[in-house]
Amino acid sequence: MVSMVTPVLLLLREPAGSPGFDRLDPGQPVASAFDLGITRGDGIFETITVIDGIPQALDAHLARFSRSAALLELPEPHQAAWREAVFAAIDAHDETIEAFVKLIYTRGIEGADSPTGWVSMLPSADFTAQRTDGIAVVLLDRGYHSTIAQTSPWLLQGAKTLSYAINRAAAREANRRGADDVIFVSTDGLLLEGPSSTVVLKLDGRIVTPETTLGILPGTTQESIFEIARVNGYPTAYERLTPDDLARADAAWLVSSVRNAAPIRAVDGQARAVDAELTESINSGLAARTQ
Amino acid sequence: MVSMVTPVLLLLREPAGSPGFDRLDPGQPVASAFDLGITRGDGIFETITVIDGIPQALDAHLARFSRSAALLELPEPHQAAWREAVFAAIDAHDETIEAFVKLIYTRGIEGADSPTGWVSMLPSADFTAQRTDGIAVVLLDRGYHSTIAQTSPWLLQGAKTLSYAINRAAAREANRRGADDVIFVSTDGLLLEGPSSTVVLKLDGRIVTPETTLGILPGTTQESIFEIARVNGYPTAYERLTPDDLARADAAWLVSSVRNAAPIRAVDGQARAVDAELTESINSGLAARTQ
Repeated sequence: MVSMVTPVLLLLREPAGSPGFDRLDPGQPVASAFDLGITRGDGIFETITVIDGIPQALDAHLARFSRSAALLELPEPHQAAWREAVFAAIDAHDETIEAFVKLIYTRGIEGADSPTGWVSMLPSADFTAQRTDGIAVVLLDRGYHSTIAQTSPWLLQGAKTLSYAINRAAAREANRRGADDVIFVSTDGLLLEGPSSTVVLKLDGRIVTPETTLGILPGTTQESIFEIARVNGYPTAYERLTPDDLARADAAWLVSSVRNAAPIRAVDGQARAVDAELTESINSGLAARTQ
Repeated sequence: MVSMVTPVLLLLREPAGSPGFDRLDPGQPVASAFDLGITRGDGIFETITVIDGIPQALDAHLARFSRSAALLELPEPHQAAWREAVFAAIDAHDETIEAFVKLIYTRGIEGADSPTGWVSMLPSADFTAQRTDGIAVVLLDRGYHSTIAQTSPWLLQGAKTLSYAINRAAAREANRRGADDVIFVSTDGLLLEGPSSTVVLKLDGRIVTPETTLGILPGTTQESIFEIARVNGYPTAYERLTPDDLARADAAWLVSSVRNAAPIRAVDGQARAVDAELTESINSGLAARTQ
């Protein structure tokens, strides 16, 4: 049973400076019309699942948050300040089964040289159907060569930015094609990532995921899955993977913080094998994380 | 003399529905923490220069606003509602010499199915030095092939979205290289656009700009410049242009709504010719627009 969750909103006083926050009414506006987070999508975020009051993979999320900030040349987020706000958001309401906290960190009001940051908490949607029945995906061109993060760092590939309009447009394109989600492919034919998820395959007895050098986000949930896989005797690897690898894989998933592991049951309209038992094992393992 | 301008902020009641707005305190927050405009950069904008109380090229800006909305599958913005708010913002303070209104239109709070829109007005920075002394630019890889808008419309090239983090990152890269601004180049070697401007060249006696089919924004200021150029006897054309064309052009500019025409005096550290007289003529022509 999912208990009631009231949204929580905590505005950090100094997101790059020191701990401290103000609790705001989540129904009231929080961002200035002149905040670069909204006028330019100039900021970063993290989404962290909370199960039984435990923010899952919090250290990995906070580490990625700092990496994203560095890629955008934002002031280093104050880890203790954000950590305090995350736990305060969790403490601010009754025990929940599945909810998520979101960290938003922007460059702040243009010209003010003072970043903006808040933490919110909302109940998660029910992803039972996607986790058990699986999802249909389409492969969409990401438009970039797989070397883009090395050759053109100003394109911010590998940073989790607020500039996600194309991730949303790609999801609409998937819906238009009768699918649930997307796997982006590089112009040189390598599997990249979903618009808000990581690709994981069971391939030749190993659990594999695309190399993060391809200009994709390092996946926090994928990292947890690799730990679970190794405990269960599977070798794990970061590799250069192609649509052919996806087609011949024994099982494939899109994995992310809130939905966890969603088995891929079709690619571009072609049904593909799912492994219900392994999926259940992975999702149970994710739900049982103690940190 | 630039007169004092107090910021103005008008929140549209139904940005896709009917005219009507509320005037807000620009010092107070306007956007929800859960607005997709901020959490996903999922929205669009326009910036319109106001000279002597006249919003320059308003029709062209509103037409592009609607085109951007269509590319993002946002509800069609209600043209009369936005027009009313623009003029109300202009009326809300004393006469100004140079200021700008900004239109922001987002998909609204996630799940609410109700877009958010506001119009703000701020004084313009003083761009006299850039307009007269010129700017140094660097050429930066945009990472996309010039056919991207046709092959992969979900990448939203040609839409003026709130997801502008890479435009800001590219500008920082230019500063790091000792330059003022950027011209993006496609992977197949064609000049595209600046992060917030259009490229215009004087080439072989004509005034030319890159074709908008290359996945770039149609420029409202560039369009006005083409009108001015034709009145002055110059043929105008939309073409496929290369860095070599930029190097051999008699004159080159980055043009945009607030800065107007900034002559390019150096490319990747190499000085290039400017045409002070023609620049002055273009900027006078832009400032004299009556609509």
